[in-house]
Parts: sequence; C-alpha cells; structure tokens
Amino acid sequence: QRRGIPEAVLAEGKSAPQVVALAETALETTGRALVTRADDRQVEALEASLEETFPDATLERRGSTVRALAADYEPPSLEATVGIVTAGTVDGPVADEAEVVCADAGATIDRIDDIGVAALNRTLDQVDRLREADVLIVAAGREGALPTVIAGLVDTPVIAVPVSSGYGHGGDGEAALAGLLQSCTVLSVVNIDAGFVAGAQATLIARAIDGARDDGRSN
Amino acid sequence: QRRGIPEAVLAEGKSAPQVVALAETALETTGRALVTRADDRQVEALEASLEETFPDATLERRGSTVRALAADYEPPSLEATVGIVTAGTVDGPVADEAEVVCADAGATIDRIDDIGVAALNRTLDQVDRLREADVLIVAAGREGALPTVIAGLVDTPVIAVPVSSGYGHGGDGEAALAGLLQSCTVLSVVNIDAGFVAGAQATLIARAIDGARDDGRSN
Amino acid sequence: QRRGIPEAVLAEGKSAPQVVALAETALETTGRALVTRADDRQVEALEASLEETFPDATLERRGSTVRALAADYEPPSLEATVGIVTAGTVDGPVADEAEVVCADAGATIDRIDDIGVAALNRTLDQVDRLREADVLIVAAGREGALPTVIAGLVDTPVIAVPVSSGYGHGGDGEAALAGLLQSCTVLSVVNIDAGFVAGAQATLIARAIDGARDDGRSN
Amino acid sequence: QRRGIPEAVLAEGKSAPQVVALAETALETTGRALVTRADDRQVEALEASLEETFPDATLERRGSTVRALAADYEPPSLEATVGIVTAGTVDGPVADEAEVVCADAGATIDRIDDIGVAALNRTLDQVDRLREADVLIVAAGREGALPTVIAGLVDTPVIAVPVSSGYGHGGDGEAALAGLLQSCTVLSVVNIDAGFVAGAQATLIARAIDGARDDGRSN
Amino acid sequence: QRRGIPEAVLAEGKSAPQVVALAETALETTGRALVTRADDRQVEALEASLEETFPDATLERRGSTVRALAADYEPPSLEATVGIVTAGTVDGPVADEAEVVCADAGATIDRIDDIGVAALNRTLDQVDRLREADVLIVAAGREGALPTVIAGLVDTPVIAVPVSSGYGHGGDGEAALAGLLQSCTVLSVVNIDAGFVAGAQATLIARAIDGARDDGRSN
Amino acid sequence: QRRGIPEAVLAEGKSAPQVVALAETALETTGRALVTRADDRQVEALEASLEETFPDATLERRGSTVRALAADYEPPSLEATVGIVTAGTVDGPVADEAEVVCADAGATIDRIDDIGVAALNRTLDQVDRLREADVLIVAAGREGALPTVIAGLVDTPVIAVPVSSGYGHGGDGEAALAGLLQSCTVLSVVNIDAGFVAGAQATLIARAIDGARDDGRSN
Amino acid sequence: QRRGIPEAVLAEGKSAPQVVALAETALETTGRALVTRADDRQVEALEASLEETFPDATLERRGSTVRALAADYEPPSLEATVGIVTAGTVDGPVADEAEVVCADAGATIDRIDDIGVAALNRTLDQVDRLREADVLIVAAGREGALPTVIAGLVDTPVIAVPVSSGYGHGGDGEAALAGLLQSCTVLSVVNIDAGFVAGAQATLIARAIDGARDDGRSN
Amino acid sequence: QRRGIPEAVLAEGKSAPQVVALAETALETTGRALVTRADDRQVEALEASLEETFPDATLERRGSTVRALAADYEPPSLEATVGIVTAGTVDGPVADEAEVVCADAGATIDRIDDIGVAALNRTLDQVDRLREADVLIVAAGREGALPTVIAGLVDTPVIAVPVSSGYGHGGDGEAALAGLLQSCTVLSVVNIDAGFVAGAQATLIARAIDGARDDGRSN
Ligand SMILES: Nc1ncnc2c1ncn2[C@@H]1O[C@H](COP(=O)(O)O)[C@@H](O)[C@H]1O
Ligand SMILES: Nc1ncnc2c1ncn2[C@@H]1O[C@H](COP(=O)(O)O)[C@@H](O)[C@H]1O
Ligand SMILES: Nc1ncnc2c1ncn2[C@@H]1O[C@H](COP(=O)(O)O)[C@@H](O)[C@H]1O
Ligand SMILES: Nc1ncnc2c1ncn2[C@@H]1O[C@H](COP(=O)(O)O)[C@@H](O)[C@H]1O
Ligand SMILES: [Mg+2]
Ligand SMILES: [Mg+2]
Ligand SMILES: [Mg+2]
Ligand SMILES: [Mg+2]
Ligand SMILES: [Mg+2]
Ligand SMILES: [Mg+2]
Ligand SMILES: [Mg+2]
Ligand SMILES: [Mg+2]
Repeated sequence: QRRGIPEAVLAEGKSAPQVVALAETALETTGRALVTRADDRQVEALEASLEETFPDATLERRGSTVRALAADYEPPSLEATVGIVTAGTVDGPVADEAEVVCADAGATIDRIDDIGVAALNRTLDQVDRLREADVLIVAAGREGALPTVIAGLVDTPVIAVPVSSGYGHGGDGEAALAGLLQSCTVLSVVNIDAGFVAGAQATLIARAIDGARDDGRSN
Repeated sequence: QRRGIPEAVLAEGKSAPQVVALAETALETTGRALVTRADDRQVEALEASLEETFPDATLERRGSTVRALAADYEPPSLEATVGIVTAGTVDGPVADEAEVVCADAGATIDRIDDIGVAALNRTLDQVDRLREADVLIVAAGREGALPTVIAGLVDTPVIAVPVSSGYGHGGDGEAALAGLLQSCTVLSVVNIDAGFVAGAQATLIARAIDGARDDGRSN
Repeated sequence: QRRGIPEAVLAEGKSAPQVVALAETALETTGRALVTRADDRQVEALEASLEETFPDATLERRGSTVRALAADYEPPSLEATVGIVTAGTVDGPVADEAEVVCADAGATIDRIDDIGVAALNRTLDQVDRLREADVLIVAAGREGALPTVIAGLVDTPVIAVPVSSGYGHGGDGEAALAGLLQSCTVLSVVNIDAGFVAGAQATLIARAIDGARDDGRSN
Repeated sequence: QRRGIPEAVLAEGKSAPQVVALAETALETTGRALVTRADDRQVEALEASLEETFPDATLERRGSTVRALAADYEPPSLEATVGIVTAGTVDGPVADEAEVVCADAGATIDRIDDIGVAALNRTLDQVDRLREADVLIVAAGREGALPTVIAGLVDTPVIAVPVSSGYGHGGDGEAALAGLLQSCTVLSVVNIDAGFVAGAQATLIARAIDGARDDGRSN
Repeated sequence: QRRGIPEAVLAEGKSAPQVVALAETALETTGRALVTRADDRQVEALEASLEETFPDATLERRGSTVRALAADYEPPSLEATVGIVTAGTVDGPVADEAEVVCADAGATIDRIDDIGVAALNRTLDQVDRLREADVLIVAAGREGALPTVIAGLVDTPVIAVPVSSGYGHGGDGEAALAGLLQSCTVLSVVNIDAGFVAGAQATLIARAIDGARDDGRSN
Repeated sequence: QRRGIPEAVLAEGKSAPQVVALAETALETTGRALVTRADDRQVEALEASLEETFPDATLERRGSTVRALAADYEPPSLEATVGIVTAGTVDGPVADEAEVVCADAGATIDRIDDIGVAALNRTLDQVDRLREADVLIVAAGREGALPTVIAGLVDTPVIAVPVSSGYGHGGDGEAALAGLLQSCTVLSVVNIDAGFVAGAQATLIARAIDGARDDGRSN
Repeated sequence: QRRGIPEAVLAEGKSAPQVVALAETALETTGRALVTRADDRQVEALEASLEETFPDATLERRGSTVRALAADYEPPSLEATVGIVTAGTVDGPVADEAEVVCADAGATIDRIDDIGVAALNRTLDQVDRLREADVLIVAAGREGALPTVIAGLVDTPVIAVPVSSGYGHGGDGEAALAGLLQSCTVLSVVNIDAGFVAGAQATLIARAIDGARDDGRSN
Repeated sequence: QRRGIPEAVLAEGKSAPQVVALAETALETTGRALVTRADDRQVEALEASLEETFPDATLERRGSTVRALAADYEPPSLEATVGIVTAGTVDGPVADEAEVVCADAGATIDRIDDIGVAALNRTLDQVDRLREADVLIVAAGREGALPTVIAGLVDTPVIAVPVSSGYGHGGDGEAALAGLLQSCTVLSVVNIDAGFVAGAQATLIARAIDGARDDGRSN
C-alpha cells in the first residue's frame, strides 16, 4: 500500500471530467487533492464541480498546479527545509510546482530566485543560505549550469530540474538535461519540467530527515 | 571549499600517469583515493607506482573501481543504510561502483541482486527489506522497469541508475534512461552507468539522515 | 487478394471528401466501413453524406474511430477472447481504437482499465483474468512498464501499444516504445498510438485460434 | 509463476562464468538450457564446463545460439507451423536464432530464405507456402520492406524482425525498424536483431493455436 | 548564369509582400513565376497584386503551388515523359507539386495514383505503363516501400519522394526517408515532401533525354 | 525480370564463402560479377576460389570494390559521359566505387578530383568541363557544400553522395546528408557512402540518354 | 562584474509584465534596454508601460527586437565595421537581430543581403566588400553553405548563424548547424536563430579591435 | 586566393602516403606544414619521408598534431595574446591542438589548465589573468559549463570547444556542445574536439587585433 508517497493527478492528456473525477476521489479519500499541469478549462471544471460536491473545500491555484483541501483537512508538518532555487525568470513555474508539492507535505520552503551563472556573484552571495537547506531543488533551463555550480559549493543533496527553455539545438530543455546527466559534480536529475517529481523526491528525502530527527530525539 | 562531497578520479580518457598522479595527490592530502572506470593498464600503473610511493597503502579493486587507503587512514562511519539493488546480472558492475562509494563513506550497505520484473515474485519477496533502507539505489538496464516498480512499493527515496545493456533501438541504456525520466512513480535519476554519481548522491542523503539522527540525539 | 485482413480508412492527412469517398466505397463493397483517427470535421462530413447515400446505414462513433454499417450487414463472430488492458486514463482512447477493431471482427472483448504498475496490487489482482484471454493488447504511455510486467505473469501472447503520453525527454511515447522493444519479457510491439494495428494483429491471432478451434472440432 | 514462457540466457554483457552458471542452473531445473548472443569465449567455457558437470548432455550450436539438452530431456511438440522468412543472406543469423527458439518449443518450422523485394517474383512465388503457416516471422534489414509486402499478401499473423544491416543514415536496422512500425499493412514488431523475442512470441501464438486445436478435438 | 534550372519561389518563411515581390520579378524577367508551399494568405496577396501589376497574366493554383503566366508567355516543350506515381491519397499534394514543375517545363506527364504495396496487385498491374516513362517520380509516406518495389521492376531512373505522413516513431516522413536511403534497389532521393526538387530533378533528366533525342536526329 | 539494373553483391555483413558463392553465380550467369564493400578477407577468398572455378577470369580490384570478368565477357558500351567529382582526398574511395559501376556499364567517365569549396577557384575552373557531362556524381563529406555549389552552376542532373568523413556533431556523413537534402539548388541524393547506388543511378540515366541518342538516330 | 558584455532581455518564455519589469530596470540603470524575441503582446505591454514610466524614452522596434532609450542616453561608438550577410530573404529577421545589437554598441554596419550560393556570382561580386569588414556575421538556413564559402574567400573572422528555415530532414536549422560545425573552412558558430549571440560576439570582437586601434594611437 | 587563413592537413580518413604528399606540398610552397589528428602510422610515414625529401626540416609533434618547418622558415609574429583554458585533464589534447595553431601564427599563448567549475574557487582565482588575453579559447567536456562561467566574468571574446569526454546520455561531447549553443552568456562555438578550428578562429581574431594595433600606430 503506497501511503507515504506524494500523490498528484497529472491533468495533461486527460479530459476535464476525468480530472474532476480523479481529484474528487482524492479529496474524498484523503481530504486533499493535488492536480498538476492543468489547463484553464480543467481548472474551471474543477472549480465548478467542487462548488457543488465539496462546497466547503478550498481550492488554491499556482500557475497550472491546483490544490483542493477539505474543510477539515489537517496539513502535515515536517521538521526539514527544502531550498528551491531558480536560475532565471522562466524557471519560475517549474519551481512553483515543486514548491507546492513540498509545502503540501509540510516542509519549510526557502525559495531563492534568479541566481543563474551569467551573473555569478548573485550565485555566490547565496552560498550560506543554500548550505542551510536539508535538500535543494535547482531548476535551470538553456545550458542548465546552475545546479552543477551549486552542487560544487554545498554538500546538501541537489535535485536538478532541467527546464524547457531555450531555442534551437538542445532547446526545450534537452541541453540542460544532457548537461545535468553529465554534471561533474554530484546531483540527481528528474525529467524536463518535472517540478512535481523534484518536489516529491525532495519530500521523500525531507521526510527521511524528519524521521531521523524524531529517531534521534526518541533515543 | 568542497569538503563533504564524495570525490573520485574518473580514469576514463586520462593517461595512466595522469591517473596515478591524481590518485597519489588524493592519497597524500586525504589519506584515501578512489578511482572509477579504470582499465587494466591504469590499475597496474597505479599498483606499480604506489608500491614505491606509498608502500604501506592498501589497494582494493572491484571491477574497474579502485580504492587506495593510507596505512593510517581512519574510515568514516554513518548511521544510515543504503540499499543497493540490481535487476539482473549485467547490472552488477554498475551497482558495485555505487557500493564502493557508499561503503567508503561509512554507510551500511544492503545489497539485493537479481530481482528484475521478469520474475516479479522475486521483487515482491524483498519489499520489507527494501523498506528498511534509508535510501535506495536501483540499477537496471534494457527497459529499466525495476526502479519504477520498487518506487511504487516503498516510500524510501529511490535513485535510479540506467545501465548500458540492451541491443537495438534504445540499447546502451537509452531506453532505460528515458523510461526512468518518464517514470510514473517518484524517483530521481543519474546518467547511464553512473554508479559513482548514484553512490555519491546516496551518500549525501545518508549523511543528511545521519546528521539528523545526531541532531535529534543532541537535542 | 487481401480478404482476411482487418481494413480501415486512416483519416489523418486526408480531406473530408476523400475520407467520405473511401468510406462509402468500403460500405458499398463490404457492407461496412471503419474509419480511424478522424477529426470532428471528417466525422460530420461522413454523417452528412451517409444520410443521403446510405440512409439506412448506422454510424457508430467512439472517440476518433467511426464504424458505418449497412442495414443488412451481418457481423462476423469469432470464438476467441481479446483482453484489452490500459495502464491509465490517458491510454483509454488508444485502447478504444483497438477494441473497435477486434469487436468489429467478432471477437469477445475483455477490457481491463487502469492497472498501471504505480499501484502494483491492482495489476496483480487481475492476473487470473488476464490469463483467460486468448491474446492480450496492453496500452501504456510514459515509461510503458505495464506490458512488460503483464507479459512476465501470463503466457498469453501480448501485443504492446506505447501511448503518446509523457512530457520532456522520451515524451510522446518514445520512452515507452523504446522500453517495450527492450522488454526483458516476451512481447511484440506496434507503433506509438497504433491502436488500429494492435487490434488488427490481435484479430489475426484470434482468427487463427478460432480457426484452430474449428479444425479441432471438425477432426 | 512463469511456466509457459520461452526462456533463454542472454549471454551478451555477462562474463563466461556467469553464462555457464545460469545455463547449468537451467539445465538442472528444466533439463534444457538455451543461450543466445553468445560469443566464442562463452560457448567454449560452456562446452568445457558441461563436459564435467553434465557429461551426458548434448550441446547444439547455431551461430551465436546454443542449446544444451540433458540426456533424458523429452522435447515438447506443438501441432503448429511457424514460417520463418528472410529477405537476404545477412538476415540469416537472426532468423536462425528465432528458428532455434520455435523448434525448441516443438513447432514445425518452414524456413524460406532470400525472397527480398528487390526480386519481387521470388516473393510472389512463395505466397501459397507463406499462407500455409500458422504464424510468420519475417526478418529483413536495410529498408525492411519484405514484412510489409508479405503481410499484404497473407492473413497469417506476421511478426517482423528488423535486422541490423545497412550503412549510413538509418543503418544498423533503424530504418527497417521505423519502416515496420509505419507499415501500411498489419504486423507487429520486435527490436532490431531480436530473433529470440520473435521466436518466443511466435511460440506463444503457436502454443495458443495448438491449444485451440486440442480444445476443438476434446470438445 | 542559371538558365536551364527549374526556378521557383519557396513561399514558406517569407511574408506575403516578399512572395509577391519575388513572383513579380520572375514574371517580369521570364514571363512566368512558380511559387511553392504558399499558404492562403500568400496566394491571395499574389492574386490581388497581379490583378493590378499584370492584369493580363493568368494564375493557376494547385494546392499550395501557384503558377503565374504572362499573357504572351510561350511554354516550352520537351519530348520526354515523366511518370508521377503515388502510393496513397495523402501523397497526392506532394506529387501535384512535382507535376506542376515538370508540366511547366513542357514534359509529358503520366500520373498514376494509389498503387501502394498494401494492395500489391494494383502495383503490378501498372508495370508496363511504368516502364514506358523516361523517368519516374514515386511519392510515398509511412514506410515508403513503393519506390523500392517499383525500382526493382523497371530500369527507368526512379526519383523517390518520402512524404510526411505517418504518426509515432518514424512519422512525418523520417521512416520513409531512411528506408529509401537504405533501399535495396537503385533510386535516388529528395527530402521529405520535396515535390519541387523531385520535379526539377526529373525535369533536368527529361531535358537531357530530350536533348539526346535532338542530338540523335540532328546527326 | 530485372535485366537493365546494375547489379552488385554487397559484401558487408556476409561471410567470405557467401560472397564467393554469390559472385560465382553472377559470373556464371552473366559473365561478370561486381562486389562492393568487400574486406581483405573476402577479396582473398574470392581470388582463391576463382583461381579454381574460373581460372580464365580476370579480377580487378579498386579499394573495396572488386569486379570479376569471364574470359569471353563482352563489355557493354554507352554513348554518354558520367562526370565523377570529389571535394577532397577522403571522398576518393566512394567516388571510385561509383566509377567502377559506371565504367562497368560502358559509360565514358570524366573524373575530377579535389575541387571542394574551401578553394573555390578550383571549383570555378572546372565549370566548363562539368557542363559537358551528361550526368554528374558529386561526392563530398563534412559539410557537403560542393554538390550544392556545382548544381547551381550547371544544368546537368547532379547526384550527390554524402561521404562519412567529419568528426563531432554531424560527423560520419550526417551533416553532409542533411545539408544535401536541404540543398537550395536542384539535386537528388543517395545514402552516405553509397557510391554503388550513385553509380547505378547515373548508369540508368546514362542509359536513358544513350537510348534517346539511338532513338533520335533511328528516326 | 559584467560591464562590457552586450545585455538583452530574452522575452521568449516570460510573461509580458515580467518583460516590462526587466526592461524598465535596464532602462533605469543603464539608460537603455534591449529586448529580443518579443511577441506583439509583449511589445504592446512595453509601449503602454513606458508611456507612463518613461514618457521621454524612445522605443525602436525591428521585427521581434525592441530597443528603448532614455531621453538622455548617449550612444557609444566603436571604430570598427561589422559586415552582416544573409543568404536569402528568410534569413533577414535573424540578421536584423544581430544588426540591432552591433549598432547598439556603436559599430558601423555593412549589411549585404541575399547572396546565397545558389547564385554564386552574386556571392563573388561582394568579395571585396566582405574583405573590408573587421568581422563578419553570416546568416544562412537550409543547407547553410554560404558562411563556409565566404570564410574560404576572406581572412576576416566569420561568425556563422544557422537559420531555422528548411522543411523535412535537417529542417529548422539543424542541417545548417551541423554543416557549419563541419565546415571545411575556419569559422565559429552560434545556435540556430541566435542573432543576438552572433551580434554580441561580433561586438566583443569589434570592441577588441577598436581598443587595439586606440592602443596603437596612444603609443 | 586564401592567404591569411590558418592551413592544416586533417590526417583523419587519409592514407599515410596521402598525408605525406599533402604535407610535403605545403612545406615546399609555404616552408611549413601543419598536420592534425594524425595517428602514429601517419606520423612515422611523415618522419621517414621528410628525412629523405627535406633532410634539414624540423618536425615538432604534440599529441596527434605535427608541425614541420623548413630550415629557413621564418615564423610570423603577432602582437596579441590568446588565452587557452581547460576545464580538466581530459581536455588537454584538444587545447594542445589549438595552442599549436595559435603559436604557429605567432600569437602569445597564455595557457591555464584545470579550472573547471567543480572547484569554482580555482576558476575565480584566474579571472584577472583571463581578462588580460585578447581572445580566449575554453575547452570543456561532459556538461561543458566552464566556457559559460568564464564568458560571464570577462568581456574578452570566448571561443568554446566542447570536448568528447563523458559517457552515457550526452556523452562524447554532445551535451557540452548543446549546452554551449544554449549558453546564457556570450560566446561562439566550434565542433566537438575541433581544437584546430578554435585555434584558427582565435588566430584570425588575434590578427585583426594585431592589425588594428598597427593601424593605430601608423596613424
Ligand atoms: N565514474 C564517474 N562518473 C561520473 N563522475 C565521476 C566518476 N568518477 C568521478 N566522477 C566525478 O568527476 C569529477 C571530476 O573527476 P576528475 O576528472 O578526475 O577531476 C570528480 O570530482 C567526481 O565528482
Ligand atoms: N489508425 C491507423 N493506424 C495505422 N494504420 C492504419 C490505421 N487505420 C488504417 N490503417 C491502415 O492503413 C492502410 C492504408 O489506409 P488508407 O490510407 O486509408 O488506404 C489501411 O489498409 C489499414 O491497414
Ligand atoms: N537474444 C535475446 N534478446 C532479447 N531478450 C532475450 C534474449 N535472450 C534471452 N532474452 C530474454 O532476456 C531475459 C533475461 O535474460 P537474463 O539476463 O539471462 O536473465 C530472458 O528471460 C529472456 O526472456
Ligand atoms: N535572443 C537571444 N538569444 C540568446 N540569448 C539571449 C537573447 N537575448 C538575450 N539573451 C541572453 O540571455 C541572457 C539571459 O536573459 P534573461 O533571461 O532575460 O535574463 C541575457 O543576459 C542575454 O545574454
Ligand atoms: Mg554538492
Ligand atoms: Mg516510492
Ligand atoms: Mg508472457
Ligand atoms: Mg497480412
Ligand atoms: Mg529500377
Ligand atoms: Mg544544376
Ligand atoms: Mg576565412
Ligand atoms: Mg564574456
């Protein structure tokens, strides 16, 4: 039985009624539903339906990510910080998706934006802050150099998310993905734009750390 | 200053004297040298040279991975378990490389071999053991389905390593890599055959957990 | 002379009048027309034209697949069961196309939806039912692990259909296709989203089995 | 429990002792071992070892495929014919691998060589014979047109095997694979050079037909 | 100075005014303008402008190909026949583009449609007619087998045009292109959908043959 | 019946005895055998065998292309000139293969070497000579610009052969192939290194021209 | 601190408000803002906002490139000429982007359009003018032969920009990019359509030359 | 006439006698010959032949690059510095090739090795030195981040050379190439391992700067 794994409905490729049905089932069984990569039509259908089926639920939207919470939902809490970093403006929505997932699991979020390597002093200025996180998610498009540079400066585990920016050869995130797989520093990777997966993997690590803090305490 | 990051000399593409020089510098400065993807010629050169320069050092070889330890080297120890899993026989050497890295950092290793999904009951038999690890490395070639299946059964963080087996379309690990990036369960990925990176990333997570256990205790 | 081979008009890339003309010819000569990958405009043109040319014909639509039957068409019947399986919601339309083809040939259909490997117990719950089919079509997108897992659990022939879901590297069905070609269990593959081909190939196998049952009986 | 599925040891990527160990286990438990894609070194190791461990076993070699049979092994028999067809000389070894698998399962083999479409009359001359098989395996390299042409002439199920011949763009079987996936006739495909998989899938179909003949008879 | 080479304006990627300007220059200097891959907006702009600038010119449109002729334009004539062949309905527009080019140069056209290899007898029925052409253009999408089959049946030079039909792996003409480059019969190839290039190359060959007929006569 | 099409045995991927057998059959039935892409081992086997089986035959070798002629073989003759052009030294062997094929068919050869665009005046110096050929084969590796430049200077049909030179991205002939398919002048293309196909296609065109010269004369 | 490097806001992938904010910050801090790859919506938002925030600023638009200048902005000046060359009409917008960047830095621009190799005399006519530039940017799509030909005729440094024109295999600039990387003459390359990067790199070279002229003078 | 362009013989793909002939012609006409990507056999042939034909010439070898100088050769001299930078040990040979080319043209070389971004302080330590060069060549394999980072720190023109190191996805320099084309800082690129091209392009820039210094002085 999968209990501890972050769950979301991937809206892409599904009809609006299908998304609504899956979200409402989640809401019913777990008091919470997370929907990613939803388009306007799907979000509107969800809003319209929830108004009827779960009139007391709240629906939070951030870009294409939507979270619905039952009135009596008790959010979890983790004693662990996930640092979420972007190289530039275009990486924002992908980082947002990761952030929603980690926050949903109760982790503390430290979001640091726009510190890409083209202006390296901005990267270097944040090193101390980066070192304080328990786990880092770093989102970067085009050549995707930022996760490599950060992973060389900290010993926190880094999960890199290539972002589908860039045009021409290697555009749409393929250069960033390939570069991150080839990184000469230590990091692991999720698919292009896979903010959900990065957030979910960071959550699993944050939970392991939170659990270890508990273990320690209870010893 | 990179201090906590697992370090190794990547032998591939370097001449034997270059590998020897880099390894001896590591040995001198840290009491330890780890060399990955070394061929016979490089290993022999290292053995020959160490005999003269560090006559008391010990040299351990596992496949193409070599570790040299100064006589007075005091190995670190981590209170954390890394589960290292293979789908089949051909995934062994990649898993071995990861294992050397994690063991070198002092983690406890739980190695589970040959539980690929073609014989699913062998996978299912190991679920409890898989759940006990703090972090899992799962190596799989060809279609690379095992990490996906395992990540759906446990809530431990899974680092997947695609392995360069398979022939024809998608061979040499590309199908496994693509499949792992597309995985419908939660995991992060390193490059094809990148046992070192998987081991090093698992080590960073294991250290974070070990540190959290200390935190807890010291509170 | 191709007589026994399942025939359909592939609407994609044809103008609406071309689709209509081909369908009406099929209807005239065989009493039946099957049109796949038709868009709304093509279906409407077909409906409009048939109303005039074949006022007694019936037109059945399922997603982008359309079947027109002459009033006096006598559907064939096969003593054989095709199991049609999907990993998730997005695989539905591709499986539907296959289902129309097999049903059109008179096979018994056993449709099993939404048993992808992320929730492995749902897969395992269906093993007995899967074993009862004479031939299986399994549709799966993203990493496409389900056909591999099923083919390892049954000795029924499995025809795998990769589905064009997934984003980023290996998206649009390429990861699933490559993984299925690399499968460590025994299966054969059709192109991405080729529900028609999967259904037609399953039909040929079902017919061979039906014929063998007749052979047996008549001996 | 996988019982009915054709089993083989894929030698590629394994050490000779590993191949020997896997083959001997198979021999011990099932009275038979099939090894595919073995190189000379692996075959010699197998011969040498079997002489000691299974002195009464016989070892049959066909190209890189090896079959070892215990002295008391009773070969199965299927009432079904597999037609195995090649386009040209270079497709021979891949077809041989398929043939060994089907023959091993007890099917009757009808092998037809060298009827590629460059000399179309040779293809057409064999149509009647092709129609008599219960299932066809057609191996073709370069542009891989033969399976498409045959599948348009018969209503037997065709399993196409692209072969890694050809140089330049689309060489090594990729053009053939892509062309077969795009085929405008009905067929299913296995990976480039995957003679084993083609043979095993044909075997599953042949078994289903054989079973249906039995069914019929026993009714 | 390029005088004998078929000339056309490739509209794709140009603004409507740019297309108009280039076409009018051609019309002015040569009495004729050929525009390929034009969209509706570009054609309309051309019609509108010509009405003013060349009120006596005639404008012929065939799909996305447009030809404008000055009132006093004297069309050339070649004593040579170009056979233009399609595998199926979707190949029509590409063949049309080639046809316009060859007809524009004065060649006799023998157009043969819809003789793809899925219904091989339709191909075989046309062999005599195919042999009578001086040069053949054969357009085929999906797996692109028709040019290979035809080139094996005739000793006329065959220029193959892969067509961007097909979905999934190898779709958009890439499978057909690769297959044609790998063809086991003798043919040369132009790019996917390059009807203009095929027509122009056929024209150059037709002119060489026409010239040789003249040579002969004048000897 | 293929009678007029240039025939050769493609040695690559065949065993030496297979090559010998195919060549000897050709020699026996047509008085001539052409073998392409043969390695030393295959050529030696052919020499050795012919000495016994056809002691009076002559064997001509040019790089990896071999032609064997029966003692009484009467070579054909064509009234047509094929210009064969290389961009640089590395294109020589591919051009040689084409040359053997055309010469074998009796065409007059005009070979022009080493006029690649890096030294454009050498290209321009040959324009008159290039214009005199009836058909041109132009072989070029790396960026493959020469066929494009030549096709812009002459109205002879140009068959371009990309050559597998070049390293890095687009190496092994892929850049040249793609560039030739994208050529902004009129030409048709054969696969990378496909000297045989270029020669054979040029031969078909040369024969058509030769035939037209005869036609003319006989009128 | 990056001071001398040409700066621009890449609008693609950003929301209109984000582009406006970045441009206004640039305007405020440097008296100038350059925005590339902006769509209509983004340009309109910029115009609307600037009217309020910087009522005295001027906004210059060229295709998708926009430059905003504060009223008191003093443009720099460089004693150096950048030659900007296009092969054809479709390359214009990419060359325009480069031109804006170089002109913005104060370089003298010599723009030469439409001298692609299909009409080689037009290329050759410009050789003297090409030789007078200090640095050349050459933009070319499809097969991208022009930069190679020009780099063989001049000893000025050439920066080649592949352009995303062309359809079929190697379309969208990939053939041009690969061909330029394989060029047999000396040049360096930027990504497909990267007019900004070409202009910025040419600017850096022009500045170095300008500086050297100053150096010389001041000696 | 190409006079100012750096010239070398690319040995790869040529026979040893061909390389010797080309080198001796260069030596004879220019007093100097540069041979790149030569293997041992080619170098030995060159040494052996030169001993006879140019007994007074000197031959310098650096890895696979060889330079032969006539006894009376007067080397050129440029007042300009080329900085040549490597990320790691494996990038050395490619940088060496570039260095030979620039030194051969008389430029001053400033070589800086092993400052890849995994140890960012080593990169930062060299910023002042990097800023002093007139033009920079930066060679980097795997993810190729170093040229991007350097180009963000200096306003010297940077020519980036991706190096064919790295294994798995994006290995052999493809990730580095794609990343450099996507770089968010300003640089231009040459092909993977194209040390010669980088050196030659840097030489053209260095000459332009040297010329400008002369210009200045002579004013
Ligand atoms: N097998 C390996 N695969 C990927 N990275 C490695 C491997 N071995 C070592 N590394 C990393 O590569 C970096 C550069 O290695 P080196 O080229 O030896 O300086 C090391 O610091 C490690 O982080
Ligand atoms: N959805 C489909 N996918 C692949 N093949 C198809 C599909 N629908 C029909 N076909 C096949 O395409 C062949 C040619 O179709 P058409 O272009 O309509 O003549 C038909 O005979 C079918 O075998
Ligand atoms: N030549 C082959 N090609 C593809 N799969 C194979 C081949 N030979 C054996 N197999 C399959 O690979 C599976 C795993 O093989 P092994 O790695 O030996 O355990 C076997 O159970 C077979 O189903
Ligand atoms: N059209 C363009 N192509 C490539 N890079 C660009 C382009 N326009 C701006 N840039 C660069 O992209 C960097 C990042 O841009 P931004 O995302 O706006 O911060 C800028 O500093 C420029 O160096
Ligand atoms: Mg780190
Ligand atoms: Mg999990
Ligand atoms: Mg099975
Ligand atoms: Mg059939
Ligand atoms: Mg032919
Ligand atoms: Mg021409
Ligand atoms: Mg030049
Ligand atoms: Mg810079």
